[in-house]
Amino acid sequence: MHDEFAKIGWLKARFELDGDSKKVVVGIGDDAAVIDFGNRPTIITVDTQVEGVHFRPDLISCRDLGYRAMVAAVSDIWAMAATPSASVVALTLDSDFPDEQFRELIEGLAEAARKTGAQVVGGNLSQGSSLSVTTTVFGLPIGKSVTRNGARPGDSVYVTGTLGSAALGLAILQTSESELAHAASFVERWRRPPTHGHVAKAMAALATAAVDVSDGCLQDLTHVCAASGVGATLHADAIPTAPGYETTCKVLDIDPIALALTGGEDYELIFTAPKCPEAAALGTKIGVVTEGSVVRVVDQAGEAIALDQTGFRHFS
Amino acid sequence: MHDEFAKIGWLKARFELDGDSKKVVVGIGDDAAVIDFGNRPTIITVDTQVEGVHFRPDLISCRDLGYRAMVAAVSDIWAMAATPSASVVALTLDSDFPDEQFRELIEGLAEAARKTGAQVVGGNLSQGSSLSVTTTVFGLPIGKSVTRNGARPGDSVYVTGTLGSAALGLAILQTSESELAHAASFVERWRRPPTHGHVAKAMAALATAAVDVSDGCLQDLTHVCAASGVGATLHADAIPTAPGYETTCKVLDIDPIALALTGGEDYELIFTAPKCPEAAALGTKIGVVTEGSVVRVVDQAGEAIALDQTGFRHFS
Repeated sequence: MHDEFAKIGWLKARFELDGDSKKVVVGIGDDAAVIDFGNRPTIITVDTQVEGVHFRPDLISCRDLGYRAMVAAVSDIWAMAATPSASVVALTLDSDFPDEQFRELIEGLAEAARKTGAQVVGGNLSQGSSLSVTTTVFGLPIGKSVTRNGARPGDSVYVTGTLGSAALGLAILQTSESELAHAASFVERWRRPPTHGHVAKAMAALATAAVDVSDGCLQDLTHVCAASGVGATLHADAIPTAPGYETTCKVLDIDPIALALTGGEDYELIFTAPKCPEAAALGTKIGVVTEGSVVRVVDQAGEAIALDQTGFRHFS
Repeated sequence: MHDEFAKIGWLKARFELDGDSKKVVVGIGDDAAVIDFGNRPTIITVDTQVEGVHFRPDLISCRDLGYRAMVAAVSDIWAMAATPSASVVALTLDSDFPDEQFRELIEGLAEAARKTGAQVVGGNLSQGSSLSVTTTVFGLPIGKSVTRNGARPGDSVYVTGTLGSAALGLAILQTSESELAHAASFVERWRRPPTHGHVAKAMAALATAAVDVSDGCLQDLTHVCAASGVGATLHADAIPTAPGYETTCKVLDIDPIALALTGGEDYELIFTAPKCPEAAALGTKIGVVTEGSVVRVVDQAGEAIALDQTGFRHFS
């Protein structure tokens, strides 16, 4: 069971054994849980960023780390078509963690909380040998919660923004190549994920399923398809990428399509919806939902493309 | 600022700057936050247990660790006189953490969730070099939320159960003394904190302030007094301890009163209330709330006792 998803499957089954299904509207296995505390559903999600696993402290400032941790957690609230409302933050810090860096970390969290609406209302400080930030975010549904299991054959697959930029930014930070045009914009894109409050609001009215891109587009879409009992076909030439993306990938000898489809941490939103102008206004149509269970990527000629990566997976 | 409480004070001020005070009924600095999501208050608290800081893996099984992490977090919900309703758990595990131990950890969390009512509805798995468990718990108020700031001069100070047993249990685990009578009961008391659902319900009707004993009775009561703008006098001879406690302390050359008042992780509840039989039925009266701001401990003759420890404090 050295696999995150196998563990989650087991956890889901284990905790459902004891559950009161009445109050759990959406349980383990979606972007966030939806709980009815007796009046109105509350959306809850939690995300942890660990030093050395999710970030290298030499590649990101404490301020950006705080900002990023908050937005990454809030991203799951948006992916449910909900509005972030509050958050609690649990920090683990080394005992000699510098005050100045602590303040910067908090400033980054506060900046993102302000920008997203996920006001920090509580938290916990613990000592520990490695820095980690665990952010629990609460949200309120705008309309119905958009889960992962509602995609239907014939729906279009949309993605917000561009794909691959965050992974490319991280690759740039880890390379010795200097003199890269556009480098700063990709690095910034990795350090500061985008916010999607307006998309979440619009999705509530039109999306059949949604997920945020944290592990990589293909892998996250595969979760949606598995939950919905459908397949999908993605068109490689429709994948939106940022200006300078292909050129920079070439300099670094990276396959641009593979990185866009499997690179993690984009924190864009993928959603499925019947094809319509309102959906097209939110993002780029990259494919269609199909019968079956296979998620495949095709080129302009309709030929299947094999990709050599399957995204970022812990415990793999 | 190498002090947990200084950091928390700064955090409180920092996050309140950006806050929407309308929705935050109780903010940073109490046992838990109380948020009004637009209908009914929800109580939220988060707690982290880190390997090597809060537990040594050689001293506690994974099952007990899970149980303990959940009850320690839920304890803050009870201390607000609320009912645990749901929880989310973020785990950080080494990549080669054994499956069998993972299952045991989850079984312990599930057992405590079942016992306390804090059904696990979501979570997060992360890789990390040291094991940590971050538990966010949600509760619903029973009547009014009992915060730390309502203690009034003349109130009595009550504590549930007994004090010092958990700290003694940990001391026993760390000593080379064998042949200790009662040893197993103290160790068990450290590994498996008590549950207080019934006390929380009763407190809602009569307590003026409450806190759970995590850092040590004196220190936690000092938080209540500071928040309430009062002092307190505790009677050393009134402190409730378990059978065999004094004898065992003597064998280990530990001051039993100092340990009972400053040893952490009891997870008993301290509350203040006008003296009444209903309060006395929930716990032992250990002192009174006074004017001023000093918290002192006196002996039978009314003489102040100096204690050489001030409880468990991270970052100290």
